[in-house]
Amino acid sequence: MAQTKKIAVVLSGCGVFDGSEIHEAVLTLLSLDMHGAKIIFLAPNIPQKHVVNHANGEECKGEIRNVLTEASRIARGPVADLAKAKVKDYDAAIFPGGFGAVKNLCSFASDGARCDVNPAVAKFIEAMHAAGKPMGFACISPVLAAKVLGSSQVTVTVGCDKGTAAAIVEMGAKHVDTAGDKICVDTENKVVSTPAYMCEQPISKVARGIDEMVTAVIKLCS
Amino acid sequence: MAQTKKIAVVLSGCGVFDGSEIHEAVLTLLSLDMHGAKIIFLAPNIPQKHVVNHANGEECKGEIRNVLTEASRIARGPVADLAKAKVKDYDAAIFPGGFGAVKNLCSFASDGARCDVNPAVAKFIEAMHAAGKPMGFACISPVLAAKVLGSSQVTVTVGCDKGTAAAIVEMGAKHVDTAGDKICVDTENKVVSTPAYMCEQPISKVARGIDEMVTAVIKLCS
Repeated sequence: MAQTKKIAVVLSGCGVFDGSEIHEAVLTLLSLDMHGAKIIFLAPNIPQKHVVNHANGEECKGEIRNVLTEASRIARGPVADLAKAKVKDYDAAIFPGGFGAVKNLCSFASDGARCDVNPAVAKFIEAMHAAGKPMGFACISPVLAAKVLGSSQVTVTVGCDKGTAAAIVEMGAKHVDTAGDKICVDTENKVVSTPAYMCEQPISKVARGIDEMVTAVIKLCS
Repeated sequence: MAQTKKIAVVLSGCGVFDGSEIHEAVLTLLSLDMHGAKIIFLAPNIPQKHVVNHANGEECKGEIRNVLTEASRIARGPVADLAKAKVKDYDAAIFPGGFGAVKNLCSFASDGARCDVNPAVAKFIEAMHAAGKPMGFACISPVLAAKVLGSSQVTVTVGCDKGTAAAIVEMGAKHVDTAGDKICVDTENKVVSTPAYMCEQPISKVARGIDEMVTAVIKLCS
């Protein structure tokens, strides 16, 4: 019997406009569970960049929410502090999308290719990569791989969004246009990505792409 | 070709301890989409009973969140006010679980069988039932059907939880013990229920039960 894979799911809050994209996160969990994986939730213990009213898209000025605390809504309980994570504890890691990935985990949403990456996030991605452990990225989160692993010329996809693709190239990475329910696999860097909601598509297609991404990540686990 | 079914998904916030159970809600959307249904989100436009820090289970005293606004995180955009919903606009309705169903939609969490149901919620369930339109309930939300439709001797399941089952009987309804990934169908009242996270089980089993519940609800649409 194959050994149970321990997969870190790195969350960035709870809600597409200021945190993790909820559907993508849950579909990742569903796929991991169907693959018999053990899921460990990670998130940085930092304030969100801001809070967005998802009903009207407006910022809730003055309201403060914590990334890890909100992420625990998706986890249904405790989420471990990413800053304390040790890569030896995981066989792979997956980053769902949502604006939280580019507002809380890095500053891509406001700074583009010149963004800063949260130090704990950058350290974790670098260490996972150095240890030869596979990582999966959905939606907009592949920009994290592009920024942190740009010098390794990592290849990712965010679907067919030309602006984001250009920024990915500017960060030193490569971009491959990909259909919404498909994946891009960089076997050398062990990085898998899927467009998810970067493409306007129904949840069942997002589910298909995420399931394929999870399958590829698990296959890449040594 | 079968006509597209319009299914209302009634949310109660965003997070298992003070709102809608996120996994159950997303799995409901996935199943509805795979069935080709059109999804319309509804929630009452009221303050949540309270806000719970999902990382440690503690109440966030003094913090106020709105049920409809938080529900829009799961919907990824606007959610219609349940108080203005007209049953003629829907072929069926589904209520995911989570404590929000028994804290925000009714007071079962604190008052048990003697609970009050939010007037808009009660009116909607009564009107759907009177119009012969099917409804699906997951997790703890079947207590809403039991309370509102108790006089119709509706039959539901919340899995094998004896305390909740006894309260359901006290409200005039019937309870059938059911395995976590199975469903209970009351064809006369057109009410379908599935235990979901009322049973301690992995997300893939919750998904199976919810998919079966959605399939049964759509089959019951006239």
